[in-house]
Amino acid sequence: MGNTFGQLFRITTWGESHGGGVGVVVDGCPPRLALTEDDIQPDLDRRRPGQSKITTPRKESDTVRILSGTFEGQTLGTPISMWVKNEDQRSDAYNEMATKFRPSHADYTYQTKYGIRAWPGGGRSSARETIGRVAAGAIARKLLRSRWGVEVLACVTQVQDLVATADVESVTAAQVESNIVRCPDAAMAERMIERIEQVRSEGDSVGGIVTGIARGLPVGWGSPVFDRLEADLAKAMLSLPATKGFEIGSGFAGVSLTGRQHNDAFRNVEGRVRTVTNRSGGVQGGISNGETVYFRVAFKPVATVMHEQDTVDSELNNTTLKGRGRHDPCVLPRAVPMVEAMTALVLVDHALRHTAQCVPSS
Amino acid sequence: MGNTFGQLFRITTWGESHGGGVGVVVDGCPPRLALTEDDIQPDLDRRRPGQSKITTPRKESDTVRILSGTFEGQTLGTPISMWVKNEDQRSDAYNEMATKFRPSHADYTYQTKYGIRAWPGGGRSSARETIGRVAAGAIARKLLRSRWGVEVLACVTQVQDLVATADVESVTAAQVESNIVRCPDAAMAERMIERIEQVRSEGDSVGGIVTGIARGLPVGWGSPVFDRLEADLAKAMLSLPATKGFEIGSGFAGVSLTGRQHNDAFRNVEGRVRTVTNRSGGVQGGISNGETVYFRVAFKPVATVMHEQDTVDSELNNTTLKGRGRHDPCVLPRAVPMVEAMTALVLVDHALRHTAQCVPSS
Amino acid sequence: MGNTFGQLFRITTWGESHGGGVGVVVDGCPPRLALTEDDIQPDLDRRRPGQSKITTPRKESDTVRILSGTFEGQTLGTPISMWVKNEDQRSDAYNEMATKFRPSHADYTYQTKYGIRAWPGGGRSSARETIGRVAAGAIARKLLRSRWGVEVLACVTQVQDLVATADVESVTAAQVESNIVRCPDAAMAERMIERIEQVRSEGDSVGGIVTGIARGLPVGWGSPVFDRLEADLAKAMLSLPATKGFEIGSGFAGVSLTGRQHNDAFRNVEGRVRTVTNRSGGVQGGISNGETVYFRVAFKPVATVMHEQDTVDSELNNTTLKGRGRHDPCVLPRAVPMVEAMTALVLVDHALRHTAQCVPSS
Amino acid sequence: MGNTFGQLFRITTWGESHGGGVGVVVDGCPPRLALTEDDIQPDLDRRRPGQSKITTPRKESDTVRILSGTFEGQTLGTPISMWVKNEDQRSDAYNEMATKFRPSHADYTYQTKYGIRAWPGGGRSSARETIGRVAAGAIARKLLRSRWGVEVLACVTQVQDLVATADVESVTAAQVESNIVRCPDAAMAERMIERIEQVRSEGDSVGGIVTGIARGLPVGWGSPVFDRLEADLAKAMLSLPATKGFEIGSGFAGVSLTGRQHNDAFRNVEGRVRTVTNRSGGVQGGISNGETVYFRVAFKPVATVMHEQDTVDSELNNTTLKGRGRHDPCVLPRAVPMVEAMTALVLVDHALRHTAQCVPSS
Repeated sequence: MGNTFGQLFRITTWGESHGGGVGVVVDGCPPRLALTEDDIQPDLDRRRPGQSKITTPRKESDTVRILSGTFEGQTLGTPISMWVKNEDQRSDAYNEMATKFRPSHADYTYQTKYGIRAWPGGGRSSARETIGRVAAGAIARKLLRSRWGVEVLACVTQVQDLVATADVESVTAAQVESNIVRCPDAAMAERMIERIEQVRSEGDSVGGIVTGIARGLPVGWGSPVFDRLEADLAKAMLSLPATKGFEIGSGFAGVSLTGRQHNDAFRNVEGRVRTVTNRSGGVQGGISNGETVYFRVAFKPVATVMHEQDTVDSELNNTTLKGRGRHDPCVLPRAVPMVEAMTALVLVDHALRHTAQCVPSS
Repeated sequence: MGNTFGQLFRITTWGESHGGGVGVVVDGCPPRLALTEDDIQPDLDRRRPGQSKITTPRKESDTVRILSGTFEGQTLGTPISMWVKNEDQRSDAYNEMATKFRPSHADYTYQTKYGIRAWPGGGRSSARETIGRVAAGAIARKLLRSRWGVEVLACVTQVQDLVATADVESVTAAQVESNIVRCPDAAMAERMIERIEQVRSEGDSVGGIVTGIARGLPVGWGSPVFDRLEADLAKAMLSLPATKGFEIGSGFAGVSLTGRQHNDAFRNVEGRVRTVTNRSGGVQGGISNGETVYFRVAFKPVATVMHEQDTVDSELNNTTLKGRGRHDPCVLPRAVPMVEAMTALVLVDHALRHTAQCVPSS
Repeated sequence: MGNTFGQLFRITTWGESHGGGVGVVVDGCPPRLALTEDDIQPDLDRRRPGQSKITTPRKESDTVRILSGTFEGQTLGTPISMWVKNEDQRSDAYNEMATKFRPSHADYTYQTKYGIRAWPGGGRSSARETIGRVAAGAIARKLLRSRWGVEVLACVTQVQDLVATADVESVTAAQVESNIVRCPDAAMAERMIERIEQVRSEGDSVGGIVTGIARGLPVGWGSPVFDRLEADLAKAMLSLPATKGFEIGSGFAGVSLTGRQHNDAFRNVEGRVRTVTNRSGGVQGGISNGETVYFRVAFKPVATVMHEQDTVDSELNNTTLKGRGRHDPCVLPRAVPMVEAMTALVLVDHALRHTAQCVPSS
Repeated sequence: MGNTFGQLFRITTWGESHGGGVGVVVDGCPPRLALTEDDIQPDLDRRRPGQSKITTPRKESDTVRILSGTFEGQTLGTPISMWVKNEDQRSDAYNEMATKFRPSHADYTYQTKYGIRAWPGGGRSSARETIGRVAAGAIARKLLRSRWGVEVLACVTQVQDLVATADVESVTAAQVESNIVRCPDAAMAERMIERIEQVRSEGDSVGGIVTGIARGLPVGWGSPVFDRLEADLAKAMLSLPATKGFEIGSGFAGVSLTGRQHNDAFRNVEGRVRTVTNRSGGVQGGISNGETVYFRVAFKPVATVMHEQDTVDSELNNTTLKGRGRHDPCVLPRAVPMVEAMTALVLVDHALRHTAQCVPSS
């Protein structure tokens, strides 16, 4: 259970790091959207390992294949099944994991919950699971762009204590992709890259913050109570591996302001209702207000480090374990397309829900 | 849509601040739990307005009535319907709201989404909606306590820039309830109360942080991908009015650490696997690891302030609006039972899901 | 669990035959539909006991009250909560039911499943539960009529072995309501009424068949696989108390025909694709084809009879039990509004789903 | 939408008759069930075309591959993804279907709903879609058998007007599989086979009835209102291609009896509550009563016949169309594993729901 996300644009991911591969079924995509693998692969390439000197050197081509749901290059309105084969999957580096629980990983909780665990490569808790999300998210992004003119993007705005400057109103995808750490602040990007390389050389790892952005939303997406736009975004982000926090608009910093300081005044700007500031983060009462939606997601430092750490084995004996193999010293650059994908999935689902309940049908 | 929360312990809230009242239907509560209104009312009393000098002086008794689902003091396994009548609901203070949109409230987004709005008192966006959640949460808490020995509580740990000290392992409900701001740090509580009174005297408002805590969970609640325990908690918290952020365990602060500093080592402690530190916040890979679950929720300052603010009216003319009537200068003390309720609802749902999938039926 | 029906127009019913009443929460109704209790009460009056000489003489006014979801006579797009108080509920006639299981009732299965049972009046298995469905169905019917021009009705077409003639293309609500058995074949209605009175005088009961009809559907409602229109109608009908069968279009009789005899040829009729015959019952491949949807629902004879019957008690001793009190000798006339309600709920849900997935938002 | 079935044991099917294949993702299967392709393939072989002289001679091996969810021959508790490649899929026989709508098929409704259609081989409306259901159903059946001792089977009990004798309490899988029409009444099976061959020689087709049976259920599976066991079974059966009716227990025939004749008396039989007769079909008040569950499903005659039939083309011109290629003259023998699969999926889902809500956890 728990492998499905969304109500009307609904995705189900499957697959472990070992075995026949990973994939996703997308149900609810409207018909007649132009779609081929070429719409999907670029986002998978931004997610895959081995793409730059600051990610893991593991080689996985992560080539996607659409197995159903399209005909002559267009969606049919039926489930879109996508599949990425596993390659290069099992290595001796993982053998110790069969009997020892990696600290701050999912090994121990999985084993206890299910009484069984696909230990090579982390099984279902492997970041490979996010391949299905990114593939589905690419479809959601295309739909948002072509049908509603909504643009979704994300960027790295903090690595450890290195904080970038980024204007959520103006940052572009080109700026984000202009460096390997996916930070639109070029000067800070340099320092982040250096930091990541240094940390890797020490056998250690770092975390950071990804900022998610959605521009061009109409007023009215979202709903007032449990399925607030920010609530669904929060769930989406905290469902990504290694995330520890989410804040929208003014977020945690906003608690230091008073109401007078914090409120977003309304003004009529050229016939359209706008807010003078955007501390709300584009959402009021759970519903989009037409301003830019932006939020920040905290990613903890990667748990696998190249040092002996205290742990227990499956017999509950105290022991130590040292990370081996090829791992990311920092997950942030590869997390950017994941955040974009989850953002797009939330938005397109709310777009369809809004259409169903509130758009007059004639 | 969007008025239902949970999969197996499923609640549906209803009601506006005007009209016949507010309520909730709880579906999925196991049979033969002892339950009367006396189990519910205390939490509603902690949520209701007028309970202390630092909350709104509006008088609402918020008396709950159980309309179905119990028989001779026990649950039947059928839907539990609970209803709280509205009283004292409409006041002249609200008349201006019929035509002017309150800044940083839901008026404008509601009106645009639905083309209609129950403007007196805020309608469905009123905090009265949370009555149903708190009532349902009281049942969830009782079930967690009696069946699994799990204790859920919350407390105020920050008001504006005033930060309290609280140990999530040892704080007690009695400490939380020992002062009207619901902060277990007695010295800081004094200062918080003073601050709130001062801010009120200035016609302004403040926000803050509530810490949520759940102790005594078994290993294994939660699930690995979309329905991670922290993802469902994040959604639950961001679905509460006025929330802007959520972080679990080390949260945003954790991004400054390296992996070596951040990881929670495992040790066998008296035959049980424990972590030496708890930066994970009791959850690893989306599944509880048996340590205390704790998280922080950011609440923005209350949007209604007693000063003229720029806004637009329903004809889109620029105008100003000044808050009137009786409002909370700080929502935090009343938010504590809301956070507890949503926490309990998430946990009990995962407890039942875990039972369904992973507990052998003997 | 299992007290919610529908995905986008979603109802949750609650209530037992004893206690505070019965009700329903309707989530997902579009905003700005004119709605007051006057739209609901007529269908409840057609469902209530004591309405004619062939139903139970129990007096229950079944007066509905809308507690939320409307403002100044229009729907808000928020949950519509409706409540009907219980009256005249517990009678000595039921005392024996505390310890003896009524044959072909739900007493034994409930008691065993839940370990507890609201035995007075049948608890949740009482036909009173359908009050919530009929109230919600009245809203769905109004929406179907006003937004899509779809007409839903039902009528009694068989009582025991008495089979009426009814043309699904032309039968009117006025014809159905012209007699107390709700059979549009006036001559057969007379005989049905006589039969029911005779059976009652013998302390026995009868069943029969209700035909459900929906006219004016556009082409395209429904979906191809699990949520076929006929599948959701079948579930809806078999969820009504006392139902034992469902067939659409040619139904069971169709199995005797060959493919050549059974197929519905297509013809262009004045620019519109029509079928020459309608053995498909208005649905092909799970999707409406624009022809009249019609189906038949089998209701078993009422289980409560005024004769001693063999049964067991809660100690599992063999014993006998004789029905007492005031019961329907035939549930069919009161089942007509239930079938209409469930039909409307299925259709409006599919209408909204179709809007979400397939209607271009322009 | 509408490609997912079940709540706790949840399957999502995908795939068209053209393209990369068909498949299913099973979410919610408990961990540590022994499972390999060998558990799945036998049911697919019973479903596949070309298995006998009375099915279509199309050759499709329908070899299943498990892509995820198992490890060393056991289920992991994670999604089980299964895939069957398409072979031999497109033939010139289908070319005319690109522009002409086959009578009593889904071509016209699909084209109108989605504005696009995978016309070769029927696309998503192809019976190939049921491969995923049968594969998932094989897992459900194994789970039912191994964990709860519940046996699910189905058999053909009518072909056109040829009615077999079958005792739902004693019929065995071996009897069902002893002939190619899957009818346990050997004498009638002979006549059915002759009839099907004759009908095929005439270029025509026939329908019939499949009886579904589940033995060994405990008391208590199911739920009282919308998710009655018979309601979910009805939906499951009417979601299969070509079905027109469902009846449980006494079904449509039961309406001719009086209550006294129809009721199932309870008796204590060796310490267990049993019913003397079983007109209820093993379900009372939506919940299993421990007796054998049995029901009948009506399948219409196959729509594809080898004769010219009136229809329209995509330009809405009147025209004619004659079936070509290799088709089943009677779908019944291949429908048996489909009915078994859907039955098992409904039952295992209710078993898990019952566990979650009503089974004490210690």
